[in-house]
This record gives sequence, C-alpha cells and structure tokens, in this order.
Amino acid sequence: MRANLSNRVLQFVLTGAETGEFSPAAMLPSERELAGTLSVSRNAVTVAYTELERRGVLRRIHGKGAYLCALPSEGESFSWSGKISRFANALDEPVLEILARSCADTIRYPLSAGTPSLAVFPQQSYAASLNRVLKIVPSVLAVGAAEGRWQLREALGRWLGTPPQQVMVTAGAQEGIDLMARCLIEPGDYVVVDDPTYPGALQSFLSAGARLLAWKTDWSLRHLEDLLLRYRPKLIFTTPTFQNPTGRVMSLKTRGDLLELAHRYRVPIMEDDVYRHTYFTSHPMPESLYKLDTRSQVVNVSTFSKILAPGLRVGWLTGPLYMVKQLALIKMRSNLFTGGLNQAVLADMLQSGEFDRHLERLRAHHRDLCDIAVDILKPLVESGILSFRIPTGSLYLWCKLLLPHDPELVLAALEAAGVSVAPGHAFAADREAGPSPFFRVCFSAIHGKQLADAVQALHDVLFQLRCVDGIDAATAAPGVKQ
Amino acid sequence: MRANLSNRVLQFVLTGAETGEFSPAAMLPSERELAGTLSVSRNAVTVAYTELERRGVLRRIHGKGAYLCALPSEGESFSWSGKISRFANALDEPVLEILARSCADTIRYPLSAGTPSLAVFPQQSYAASLNRVLKIVPSVLAVGAAEGRWQLREALGRWLGTPPQQVMVTAGAQEGIDLMARCLIEPGDYVVVDDPTYPGALQSFLSAGARLLAWKTDWSLRHLEDLLLRYRPKLIFTTPTFQNPTGRVMSLKTRGDLLELAHRYRVPIMEDDVYRHTYFTSHPMPESLYKLDTRSQVVNVSTFSKILAPGLRVGWLTGPLYMVKQLALIKMRSNLFTGGLNQAVLADMLQSGEFDRHLERLRAHHRDLCDIAVDILKPLVESGILSFRIPTGSLYLWCKLLLPHDPELVLAALEAAGVSVAPGHAFAADREAGPSPFFRVCFSAIHGKQLADAVQALHDVLFQLRCVDGIDAATAAPGVKQ
Repeated sequence: MRANLSNRVLQFVLTGAETGEFSPAAMLPSERELAGTLSVSRNAVTVAYTELERRGVLRRIHGKGAYLCALPSEGESFSWSGKISRFANALDEPVLEILARSCADTIRYPLSAGTPSLAVFPQQSYAASLNRVLKIVPSVLAVGAAEGRWQLREALGRWLGTPPQQVMVTAGAQEGIDLMARCLIEPGDYVVVDDPTYPGALQSFLSAGARLLAWKTDWSLRHLEDLLLRYRPKLIFTTPTFQNPTGRVMSLKTRGDLLELAHRYRVPIMEDDVYRHTYFTSHPMPESLYKLDTRSQVVNVSTFSKILAPGLRVGWLTGPLYMVKQLALIKMRSNLFTGGLNQAVLADMLQSGEFDRHLERLRAHHRDLCDIAVDILKPLVESGILSFRIPTGSLYLWCKLLLPHDPELVLAALEAAGVSVAPGHAFAADREAGPSPFFRVCFSAIHGKQLADAVQALHDVLFQLRCVDGIDAATAAPGVKQ
Repeated sequence: MRANLSNRVLQFVLTGAETGEFSPAAMLPSERELAGTLSVSRNAVTVAYTELERRGVLRRIHGKGAYLCALPSEGESFSWSGKISRFANALDEPVLEILARSCADTIRYPLSAGTPSLAVFPQQSYAASLNRVLKIVPSVLAVGAAEGRWQLREALGRWLGTPPQQVMVTAGAQEGIDLMARCLIEPGDYVVVDDPTYPGALQSFLSAGARLLAWKTDWSLRHLEDLLLRYRPKLIFTTPTFQNPTGRVMSLKTRGDLLELAHRYRVPIMEDDVYRHTYFTSHPMPESLYKLDTRSQVVNVSTFSKILAPGLRVGWLTGPLYMVKQLALIKMRSNLFTGGLNQAVLADMLQSGEFDRHLERLRAHHRDLCDIAVDILKPLVESGILSFRIPTGSLYLWCKLLLPHDPELVLAALEAAGVSVAPGHAFAADREAGPSPFFRVCFSAIHGKQLADAVQALHDVLFQLRCVDGIDAATAAPGVKQ
C-alpha cells in the first residue's frame, strides 16, 4: 500500500516532466504540498522524491526544495541567440560595420571611411623609431599602465599644453568615448548628442542603455536648455570643431555659453575633438571646450587616427584627474592597457618635432585632395544636383542631394558603380530616422589619381540620375543587383 | 489688484526657488494647481509665469509644463563622483591595478604580475618582420576588420586546427572575456566562476552587473548542478588547463561531464585557455573544452600575452560563427579593431615556424626558472612554513602559508622587503572574502639571477616570520611602514 502510494507520486512527477508541466530546472512542489494535492501521506512523497533523486530525475537542495533535473538531450546545436543581453541586442544595426567594411575588395572607390591620407605617412622615420624602441625590450613589451606610457603622456601633455597627469592614452577616440559611456551611463539615462553625429558614439551610448536626445548642430542653447530641463541628461556629447559629419565649427561665444549652461545644470560634457588638428591653413580654431572650461566639467577625447593612421590604434583623452583615474580602472576591465610599441614611437615623434613636420605635410596634402574633390563636384552644385560647404578642415564633404530621388536607390546606384559613401541616416541621433538626402564623402581615404577617378564616378552617377525618374534610379546604373 | 495677485504668485515662486522648496530643473506646479493653492485667478498665474520666463527664472515647455531654470552659480569645481554609474562604482577595489603596478619602481622583486619571461623574446626576428610589414603601408595602418586581419586569423586557425572564420583577434584575453561579459550579461544575471580565479574576469563580470557563483576548483559536478538548478546562471567561466591561480588541470572525464551538464541545462561556457601552451615538457594536455564540445556551446579565449609578450596586446578567441559576429560588433563599439602592425608580424611568425621555435625556447627557459624558485623555497616546505604543488606548466607557484600569522601582515612584511606577490584574496569569487593564507608567485616575470634574489628574499622574510609572533610579524621586517 505504501509502495503503491509513493508509486503514484513517482508517476505523477515523471508524467509532469514528460508532458512539460514541470520544466527542466523548475522547482517541484514541496513534499507537504504534493502530499495534499495527491491525498497521500507526506512520507509517501518523501520516499518517492528519494527514489527520483537516486534516478537523477530531481535534486533536493537543503533549505530550498526539490528541482527537476534536465535530462540528457540529443546532440542538436546550442542556441546562443537567446543568451545575448538586451543591450547588446539593441544594436544589431551594423552602421560601424558598414563604415569599416567600406574598404572591402568589392568597393573600387571607398569614400565612406574616415581616415587621413596614408600617402604621406612617415614610413622611414617610423620604422627607424620602431627599431630603436624594440631595443628597449622589455619595457615596451611588458605589462604597462592603463593610463598609458608616462613618456607618451608627457609628450602629449607638452604638445597639448596640458599637465601629463590629465592625459590618458586610449586605443583611439572610440575607446575614449566607450570608456566614458561605461563610466557614466546607466540604463535609462539620457544623453544629449549632436544631431547628426559620429555613429560610433551613438553605438557606445545605446549599448550602455542610454536614451538619446538630439541637439541639432545649429547648437541652439535655448533648445539645449529645454532638453536639460525636461530630461536632466547624464551627459552632453558634442564635436564643436569640424563637427562630424557636418564640418561645422562652434563659435567661441556659443562655447562659453554652453559651458555656462552645462555648469548651471551640473551636466558634464564630453568633447569629441578628433578633427581639431585637421585644419588646412594656419587659421586658428576656437579654443576647445576643455581649455575654456574653468570648472573641470569637460572630458576631451582625441586620436592619432585622423592625423597619422587609424591602424596604430592610439588616441588620448584629457580630463580631470578624478576621471582619468576612473576611466583607467574601466580600461583595465576592457583590455588592461594599450600596447607599448606604437606609444613609444609616437612619444619619440612628438618629442623630436617629427610629428609636427608630418602634420604640416598632411595638411597641405589634404588641402590638395579636398580641392580635387571640390573641383570635380562643382558642376553638380551649379546644376542644382548637390550642395555642400567647402570645408576649411576635416576629412569630409557633407553633401546634400537636391534630386527628388529615394536616397536608398541613389546609394545603391553609387554602390553599383563601385563608389561607397557614408549614408546620412547612419549619423542620425534618431535610430528610427528614415533615409536621408545627405551623405558624407571622405576625400582623404584614397590617393590622388584614384581619388579623382572615384569622385568622377560619383559625379557621373549623380549626373546621370538627374535625367532618370526617382523610382527607376537604381536600374539606371549598369550592373545594379535587382 | 490683478497686478497684485500675480505679484503674489511671482513672490511665491521666487521664495520657493530661494529656500530650495523648488529645486533647479524641477517641474513647477501647473498654472491651475497654483491658482488653487494661492486662491488667485488662473490668469494671474499665467501673467506671473510669463514674467518669470522673461526673467529667465522658469521655462515653459509646450505640452509638459513649467520648469525652474538653474541660476548662474559661483565658480566652484564640478563634482564628477556623483555622475559615475553604479556598475562602474561597484568596482572601486583596484585589484587589477595592484597586479599591474607590481612592476612599479618601488618594488625591487616583482613576483605578482602574470607575464612570461621576456629574456627569450625574439627581438631580432620581430624587428625584421616589423620592417617588412611596415613596407606594406597602408594595409597595416588603415582601418581594419573588428574580427582581426584575415592573414592572422588564417595563421592562428592553422596553428590551432580551427577554421579561421571561427577565430577572432582581440586585444589580449582580457578583451575576449570583457566582450563576452558585455555580450551576454545583464544586471542581475548569475555567472558561475572557478573559485579562486583570474581577477580580471571577476571585474568584467561585476561591471556588467553579474552576480557571481563560486565553483571550487575541485570542479565537483554535483555542486555545479546544484548551482545550475538553483540559480539558472547565464554563463560558466572556467580555466580548465593550468587553472589560474591554482595550476590545476581538469581531467578529460570531468571535461566531458561538464559539457554534458552544461548542455542539459543550456548554459554556455567561456573557457579561459591562456595557459594551454605553457607546459614545460611535451606531455600533452587534455583537449580543450572548445575542441571536445560537439554542440557549439563553448567560446575559448587565449592570448600571446602568456607565451610571447603582454605588451603586444594581441590575443584571440575561438567560437561559433554567430558569436564571432556578435563579439565583433561589440568590439567595434569598444575600440573599432586591433592595430595592424603586431597582427601582421605575428601572422608572419606563425607561418614561418618562428613562433613554434620561440615556444620551445620559452618552455625550456620557464622550466629552468621554475626549478630555481622551487629549489630556494623547498626548505620552507620542509620546515612546514609553506606548501605548494610543483607545477608542470603555467607561470606560477600557488603557495599556502602554514604559519598562523595574519596574511595581511605577511604581505606587508614582504612588501617592506621589496617583494610583491599576488594576494590570495584578489582571486576569490566572493568579493567580501577576508585575507587568505594563499598567495601566487610568478617565476617568469623577472630574469634568472634577479629571480633567485627575489625568491631568496621571499624565503628569508617567511623564514624569519616563523620565529615571530603573528601580531608582531610586520614590525619584524626592517623598514615596514607603521
């Protein structure tokens, strides 16, 4: 009789497991509860649970209860997609990937990436310096400080006019932005961003769980104050000098007013300053927010990626000592520290003046490249097909298509002709924004003759499109995939 | 009369702002509400609000209401500490910093860091290869793929016996671990970790908001199943080969059982495999979980940091294509991609066989260094002061102090003698764990003669402590700070 009763319990659990009433790893009813449900003695349940535990069907954990074990299953593959965190998942849109892949083999004329010309890269002096620093093994190959090599922080500090303790070396500006996002942003926090702005920053903020507030790049302080009042954002992210992608430069007056407003509302500012040194002439830029600030409220991120080479993965940020310390702790979690070889070489180049000489050459070269692009595109402006401002620095033309065509079809037509540009919607603070008539052309990503060919190809596609109805635009260019 | 009434409203708001009843950026009562409170007409409130808006005291935002503006304030410094996210804040304990700083100038005998010997670094061939790859500018200096250079992924794939598409290049194993944490972990998720384990992994999990479940390194599967049942963790993190810091190697049988269990409960595994190639003899290690797994449930992270040089910041991970893709997207947010120069050189070294020749030399050298350390410490073991297992690989001795002294005082005595070791509590999964009698000695961080001096200094401090009462231990060593 007793065996019979506990058999009933046993069957009840096995059936429940089989039918899915009890799911694997679920907690089973307590012994007392089940005794009540099945109208058996508590002892019958205890006997049954002991037998089921022996068989590996359930596991009793002291003080908690009984859990149904998962049973061995067939060899199907593991499904990772259900394991991805919702913040990682929120970012499927591979905008950065589009930009990075623009150098893919299938693209003949990559005008989308944001890289300086490598034609004037000082290869010989770089190699010579590398050979020198490799002889100081182990220093450059050993574990280094998360803040960066002291020698480079000192050299950068002197070059920037900033105390070296307030300079931190990063793996490019993207890392500086991402460290700030990880340091400050909690899920649900608001962040004010230039609109349009650098897609990599948007990705970092979104992956930290931020909600974005678009601040149009006319930089209206009245609009900003409305945003500060209504949303109390955690951070203001702006690129006041050669704004990416628009190329705008914030006036000195607006910079002062912005600092004042941010101080009144106690909102910190991250200044993306990666284009500061890309001006063509010696015309001085307005001072950075970081330098104008008297209350340690600004962290400034910059990089060698826009003025030497992106593949070195060396950038820097400047900020209050407190933040340098915090960001260094987060950098340790992220990748411990930045590699020593390039840091040592860059310190060398800054100290010897070689870097300044390189910058002079690079500026002259970029001015020439910009002239080439502008000259080829000028007829499109004159025919009312395109509009852009002629830049005095940065690496880009920010173009607005004046044709009534669907921007996506225009991009497809360009791609079919082997031309990649950075699509305007990639820069929109509103991730739901539709296609944009804007696109960004990088005039420094490829060399002189190739640049002329690329911009000419761009010109030809747009010029032909003028004669074609918007709907048919994509098919007008030869070789478009249907 | 009307002006009087609206003056009352005006004064009410100004007084509230002054006394702090209304805080800056707070929403003020609606016009209707305030009219009721003050028993005035709604129109009187409207007039007052309009006047206050003109004076810059409040701002009305259509459809929302009226906000009190922040007033200009004196020039005190900005306080960043209140802005730090709680996940960043949760990690003040700078364990990694302690480890990284162990090479600081004040430490004469750094035995705490986890770095291979740089004495056998193949400096000449590395420099020669660097010079070669610098000639292929711009390829190595341009924007690269987040997954790494194809050439290195291919070379690693061949070396590891893994399809190159499943290999991703990272900035060291720390980045692989951190990318996994960012990809999978949401605040509140449970993660099973070896206990003790690598502190850098703990930091990454905690900063993603994880709660840690300690799995003792006897690797009891019964205990693991209890954890899986009770907590349904998001991830199992384990170092089955030359576990850090214990040096243990998980048996082939346990590996199989672990995979089976993880599959039954659908819990992915991250395998920290950075010590696989550090074995002294040619005795083969059990196959990695990644290789034994038939269901794509394991991501394996590894690095050149333990077998060549940490300052290169090049590591790799291997995993299912789906995860390589996801992790690459997160790497883009973090720092876009890993620098090209070292990647190109490492691909060269792997392809030419130079890397394998280096590994042979490194293993022989590490075996010698380990022998030196063991020989010097043997008397301590014989006197019952210390115990450790003689390792067959890895870079460490995992020592247990058998003296009854307070471990913190012992560490202080060592530091006073210029010796840094990695304290046991830094590896504890329980972040509240008290001082531990264990500490980790890295025998490969410094060169031969210096290593002997360092271990001798360690020996001498511990030997002297034996004769001293626990409480007075710190004062027994000369020069200890009180």
